[in-house]
Amino acid sequence: MSDEAHAISKRRVYTGRVVSLDVDTVRFPNGAVGELEMLRHSGASAVVPFLDDRKSEDPRVLLIRQYRYATEGVIYEIPAGRLEPGEEPKACAIRELREETGYEARDVRFLTTFYTTPGFTDERIHIFIADAVNPGNRALEADEIVELCPVPLSEAMELIRTGGIVDGKTIIGLLFCARFGRFG
Amino acid sequence: MSDEAHAISKRRVYTGRVVSLDVDTVRFPNGAVGELEMLRHSGASAVVPFLDDRKSEDPRVLLIRQYRYATEGVIYEIPAGRLEPGEEPKACAIRELREETGYEARDVRFLTTFYTTPGFTDERIHIFIADAVNPGNRALEADEIVELCPVPLSEAMELIRTGGIVDGKTIIGLLFCARFGRFG
Repeated sequence: MSDEAHAISKRRVYTGRVVSLDVDTVRFPNGAVGELEMLRHSGASAVVPFLDDRKSEDPRVLLIRQYRYATEGVIYEIPAGRLEPGEEPKACAIRELREETGYEARDVRFLTTFYTTPGFTDERIHIFIADAVNPGNRALEADEIVELCPVPLSEAMELIRTGGIVDGKTIIGLLFCARFGRFG
Repeated sequence: MSDEAHAISKRRVYTGRVVSLDVDTVRFPNGAVGELEMLRHSGASAVVPFLDDRKSEDPRVLLIRQYRYATEGVIYEIPAGRLEPGEEPKACAIRELREETGYEARDVRFLTTFYTTPGFTDERIHIFIADAVNPGNRALEADEIVELCPVPLSEAMELIRTGGIVDGKTIIGLLFCARFGRFG
C-alpha cells in the first residue's frame, strides 16, 4: 500500500482572484477512487505584533478589528495577508503589518506554519512574532476598514477562552506565544 | 457608516459534495463595492479525546494520522468531521470519535468554536473535549485510512512547538486544553 494519493484527472472548475477550485479524481492510498474538491490558495503570512517589551509580564498585543463577510460582522485578528508571487513568508508578514497597522516590524521570529483546513484547501499560514515600532501611515485596500486594538496578552487569552476571538490563525498565534514563549 | 456589508448580487459558480463556491458582489461597510469569493461550508465538529484520566499530569490524547490530499502526506489530527443536516455539534463530535476511532465519548464538554479561515470561507469548527472509553469497531468511509496514535499531552505540545502537528483545529484543540484546563 502506497502512502500517496494520485490524481487520475484534474478539472479546474473556477479560477478566481483569491482562490481557485479544482475537482480532482483521485486514487487514494487504499486503492479507492473518488472525486475531491480542492481549493487552491497561494498561502499567507500573519504576525503577532507586540507594542511593549515582549519579555515583560503582560505586554500589549496589537490586534486589529475588521469586518468579514464570512462572519457577517467585525472580528479580532492578528495582521495577515496573502503571499505575493515569489514573496518570502517573513517579508509578507512585515509588509502586512505595515500596510494594515502602519507599524514597522522589529526582531521578527518564525513561530509556526499550519494548514487552515486541510479537508478542502491547501492554504497554509506562516505565523511570526515581532515587535511593532515606529507607527506611520497605513496602506489599506479600498475594501479594508481596519481598527487598531492594543490588548494586553492576558486579556487576549481571556478573549480566546470566552469565544471573543474566533479567528483560527489569531487563536494559534496568541496561544503559541503564551505557551512557548515570546523569543525576547 | 454601517457595520455590515450587503450582497448586491450573488452568483453560485460551483455546487459540490463538501463545499459550494459563491462569487458575490458586495457593498462593504465603507461603501466600496467589490467581488468576493466565498466558499460555503456547513461546519464541522472536532473532539480532543483523552485515553487516561484527563485531570492527571500527562494523560494520553488519542490523535489520528491520516492521508490528506491537500498536504500530500499523512498528518496528525484530532477526530473531526462535517455536521450532517440538522445535526447538533456535540452529537457530531461524538459520532466522529466513534466512526474514526471506535471509542465512545464520555463527559463531553464544549471548548470553543472558531472560523478556520474567514477570508474566503464561512466554515466554523466546534471543538469539544471528552474521555475516550470502551473501544469497539470503527466505521470508516471507503477513502479513509485512519491510524490511531495515543500521544501524551506533553509530547503533543512538543509536536506543536516543532511543527510536527500542522493542522489548525488540532493545534487549537490541544493548546486550548493545555492552557485553559481539561474540565475534569
